[in-house]
Amino acid sequence: MTIPRIGQGVDVHAFTDTADGVPLHLGGLHWADSGGLDGHSDADVVAHAACDALLSAAGLGDLGAIFGTSDPRWAAASGCTLLTETAARVRAAGFEIGNVSVQLVANRPKFGPRRAESERILSEAVGASVSVAATTTDGLGLTGRGEGAAAIAVALIVHSGE
Amino acid sequence: MTIPRIGQGVDVHAFTDTADGVPLHLGGLHWADSGGLDGHSDADVVAHAACDALLSAAGLGDLGAIFGTSDPRWAAASGCTLLTETAARVRAAGFEIGNVSVQLVANRPKFGPRRAESERILSEAVGASVSVAATTTDGLGLTGRGEGAAAIAVALIVHSGE
Amino acid sequence: MTIPRIGQGVDVHAFTDTADGVPLHLGGLHWADSGGLDGHSDADVVAHAACDALLSAAGLGDLGAIFGTSDPRWAAASGCTLLTETAARVRAAGFEIGNVSVQLVANRPKFGPRRAESERILSEAVGASVSVAATTTDGLGLTGRGEGAAAIAVALIVHSGE
Repeated sequence: MTIPRIGQGVDVHAFTDTADGVPLHLGGLHWADSGGLDGHSDADVVAHAACDALLSAAGLGDLGAIFGTSDPRWAAASGCTLLTETAARVRAAGFEIGNVSVQLVANRPKFGPRRAESERILSEAVGASVSVAATTTDGLGLTGRGEGAAAIAVALIVHSGE
Repeated sequence: MTIPRIGQGVDVHAFTDTADGVPLHLGGLHWADSGGLDGHSDADVVAHAACDALLSAAGLGDLGAIFGTSDPRWAAASGCTLLTETAARVRAAGFEIGNVSVQLVANRPKFGPRRAESERILSEAVGASVSVAATTTDGLGLTGRGEGAAAIAVALIVHSGE
Repeated sequence: MTIPRIGQGVDVHAFTDTADGVPLHLGGLHWADSGGLDGHSDADVVAHAACDALLSAAGLGDLGAIFGTSDPRWAAASGCTLLTETAARVRAAGFEIGNVSVQLVANRPKFGPRRAESERILSEAVGASVSVAATTTDGLGLTGRGEGAAAIAVALIVHSGE
């Protein structure tokens, strides 16, 4: 095995007003009873951070460059769709995906009870193990004040066929 | 060797009023002359971020799920105790721990003079190399305004017996 | 191959007033028409985060300890100079550098059009692949309000000669 490659990714989106009726998509799941996030495609910061980690590990650029806001094909794409497409590009570039680790940093939703479900769906999208964790920031900062949700991810890949 | 696995973890806690007399624990060390952090157990964000990175690398969930705020066994646990327990669980799940890298992001304490001491104590707790770094955010954001302390960690593990 | 080692690094600097005429250096590039960042040396958060990730992976401490603000040799050093020096120290400590992944988190400059140029320059400085990505935080937090620029990096290294 040659030296593995790693990548990291961060994403942040602002919460919309619950009254706006924007659905919340996070970690590949739909969360009812919670206002959604504002942003390109479905604003799933967990999936987007995972995409950026994978793309950076493979040296393929970033989410904005590949699924840019000006490209109508991806305007309504779910986080899982972007993740599936990202994983396909990483493999097409000659890599095998080891694993991805993502952490949601947000006041809501209460992620724990559906963590396993999120991991299953994101792992299927990537075709490799995706760990998902969640934490809060003790009422501080943009996530603590409930203004938005952030996610941080790392990914490890290796050249395939080794 | 099969493909290594990586994980990342973030933790943030708010500083208490120095007058409250809460002791400050960071990086496995006690810091006199500085107000402590508010939070579950001893609020050692450095140790907690390291725990989350290890748990996520192993696909074992997160700190909140394992050492939850409702479990009295861990209510007063030190960061080192949680780290030792986390490392034991990662090994019990069939992994060898490669290393952990953690960075404290905070205005205080002045970490540099005790960095080596913190690395020694945390490495003993994990049973593998733990690097600890520290930085500030130039007066900006929740850490720059001195509202709280943050820590970010990554961990690399491999399946044991390889 | 023994188990690879990973490290992470974060850096944040405040934007200066454009009228102050401080040049902006980010990702090893000079950006005209944009106010610079305040800080030690050239305040290139992308290069600095990469340095910290490499140093932490190798267990060599952090940027502040090695290129401290009190050391006049590094007071005016460019991010690339620090990165070249950091890579040399990591190799002198017995490691081969696998890759580095850095993400700029800032409202400006518009990084995408010069991403490949930045990757080429930073990769030359490190002597190994450096991926650079960029994102924003949707108007939130210290970077979203335009107060400063942040960067987050991870690095993977292995013991050399294996």
